[in-house]
Amino acid sequence: MKIAIDAMGGDQGAAVMVPGVLKAKQKYPHLEFILFGDEKEIQTYLPNPVEGIEVVPTTEVIDYEDEPVRAVRRKKDSSLVVAAKSVKEGQADAILSAGNTGALLAAGLLFIGRISNIERPGLMTTLPVVKGEGGVDFIDLGANAESKPEYLNDYAVLGSTYAQLARGVKNPRVALLNNGTEKTKGNPLTKEAYQLLSENKEINFIGNIEAREILNGVADVVVADGFTGNAVLKSIEGTALSVVRLLKQNILELGLRGKLGAVLLGPAFKKLKAKMDYTSHNGAVLMGVKAPVIKTHGSSTVDTIVACIEQIEAMVDGEVIPHIVHDFEQKENML
Amino acid sequence: MKIAIDAMGGDQGAAVMVPGVLKAKQKYPHLEFILFGDEKEIQTYLPNPVEGIEVVPTTEVIDYEDEPVRAVRRKKDSSLVVAAKSVKEGQADAILSAGNTGALLAAGLLFIGRISNIERPGLMTTLPVVKGEGGVDFIDLGANAESKPEYLNDYAVLGSTYAQLARGVKNPRVALLNNGTEKTKGNPLTKEAYQLLSENKEINFIGNIEAREILNGVADVVVADGFTGNAVLKSIEGTALSVVRLLKQNILELGLRGKLGAVLLGPAFKKLKAKMDYTSHNGAVLMGVKAPVIKTHGSSTVDTIVACIEQIEAMVDGEVIPHIVHDFEQKENML
Repeated sequence: MKIAIDAMGGDQGAAVMVPGVLKAKQKYPHLEFILFGDEKEIQTYLPNPVEGIEVVPTTEVIDYEDEPVRAVRRKKDSSLVVAAKSVKEGQADAILSAGNTGALLAAGLLFIGRISNIERPGLMTTLPVVKGEGGVDFIDLGANAESKPEYLNDYAVLGSTYAQLARGVKNPRVALLNNGTEKTKGNPLTKEAYQLLSENKEINFIGNIEAREILNGVADVVVADGFTGNAVLKSIEGTALSVVRLLKQNILELGLRGKLGAVLLGPAFKKLKAKMDYTSHNGAVLMGVKAPVIKTHGSSTVDTIVACIEQIEAMVDGEVIPHIVHDFEQKENML
Repeated sequence: MKIAIDAMGGDQGAAVMVPGVLKAKQKYPHLEFILFGDEKEIQTYLPNPVEGIEVVPTTEVIDYEDEPVRAVRRKKDSSLVVAAKSVKEGQADAILSAGNTGALLAAGLLFIGRISNIERPGLMTTLPVVKGEGGVDFIDLGANAESKPEYLNDYAVLGSTYAQLARGVKNPRVALLNNGTEKTKGNPLTKEAYQLLSENKEINFIGNIEAREILNGVADVVVADGFTGNAVLKSIEGTALSVVRLLKQNILELGLRGKLGAVLLGPAFKKLKAKMDYTSHNGAVLMGVKAPVIKTHGSSTVDTIVACIEQIEAMVDGEVIPHIVHDFEQKENML
């Protein structure tokens, strides 16, 4: 298995991507990597050649500020574009980037391509479940600002396949994000999607879920239109951050007493942080394209990179994509 | 000023509503109240008549499980319906209920009625701002599952008027909830709404806001379509609750050390709780109808009821509704 790495993406670029790959390589010696990016920068962190880690020099970088589609079309020698093309051409099996999300999605669609009969791939992440262990696959996080009921039906199959084969969840419970749990609830999109999901025999559909229940472990997969999914994900991130920040500030105001209390409760805070910081457990996957396309947070650490590489391995080992291809091949092309 | 109280709504009904009214009456002797509900139950908490607190016996109750519109039409002698009708007939100036949200919205629309030229009233709450003091008015929380750009434009004026006159915010900053801050972002609805808001001279429109920024005090009013607003509100509530619950559990696992730390940090936790529990500061207002219609949480306490009555007073004192009526009167009827 060979993984294409956009070594220039993320807040720290090669300074995190290369050490991340080195750590993963030590842990999983059978994995191979191709690092795409500025040769000199990569060499700073990889002074001597390592077997199984190839370096492909590129001269351009796509920034966060770049307009995604235009950047992907124009910056032909960017680390991201050349990495995506290497997957297209079969030199690598998957791509990992910490760069511009929109550009990675565009490159994934443009170069790696949609799986037949999947009209709109969706972006998915695994959120932590607050009660007990495990996670919930939440899709679409905003790959599409506009959705149709059919997309949501596809997301259900994509998320369910991932939960089953990459996360080992048996008969994953799939729920539809809606504004109430009753089946009559919703806007026209979710009402129609509810109908399609109820009739879909490939999934274990358990009905509607409200946003406040997402983290409570009542479903293994939650499907949403990309606009709402995006807003919900950002609300979860923003609120978790706000609560922690507010508590920190309140503790500081207590002076010495606060410091002492914080030391005593240190392990509890640490555990909370580890649970809520889901970006350190996995990246977001563009589900519905012909290879694993993984986006990790711009602020990723070395360990995040290792976690994303483990995620790619789980996807490839579980044969997630071949299963999806097979599933959707059998469908009539409705486009 | 006379306020109609649905004394039967909420998890505890009259046991909270009546003491809440009594406490408010003591604090604000000039306010008058009409309690609607089961006479005997009300008398339990109000054994002797109090001047300025009238009791109107009703025989029916709308439950949480009732289908809202049907319940409002059929349960003609329910506390909620009779209370709403008293506002319609001018016997009271405002209504407060802790009962079935949908039924209160339906009663508000059906009996109290829309203000001319406002096609779809929206549900609004004031969320706490995490940095510093103050709040942000978030509208629509889900009065309408389907929205049009024009509704969002109306919400902006409604929220802005409320922020200015009931909360005393000068020149309130109005933002549009969207999937990115750039003005080109969004789905067709938000793109069109952006255009309308930019051209709206009655408001101080500052552009798009992402869901993760809502609590950060960058806007005084945030407008959203009801479906997304509902999902975002529930995500904020759910996440805040999850984080606190998770932390509590982690602290418990620390045993004695955890107990000691929790005692030391007690004031910091208490302050966090007070800030995040915005339902104790105010209720949700159905903005766009001809009188204040306030929905408070089913689990409201006596102090929540007092806070909601203060909110009604602020709305009436600030002449929020007369201003809205005047604003919208001047518009051509576009319906």
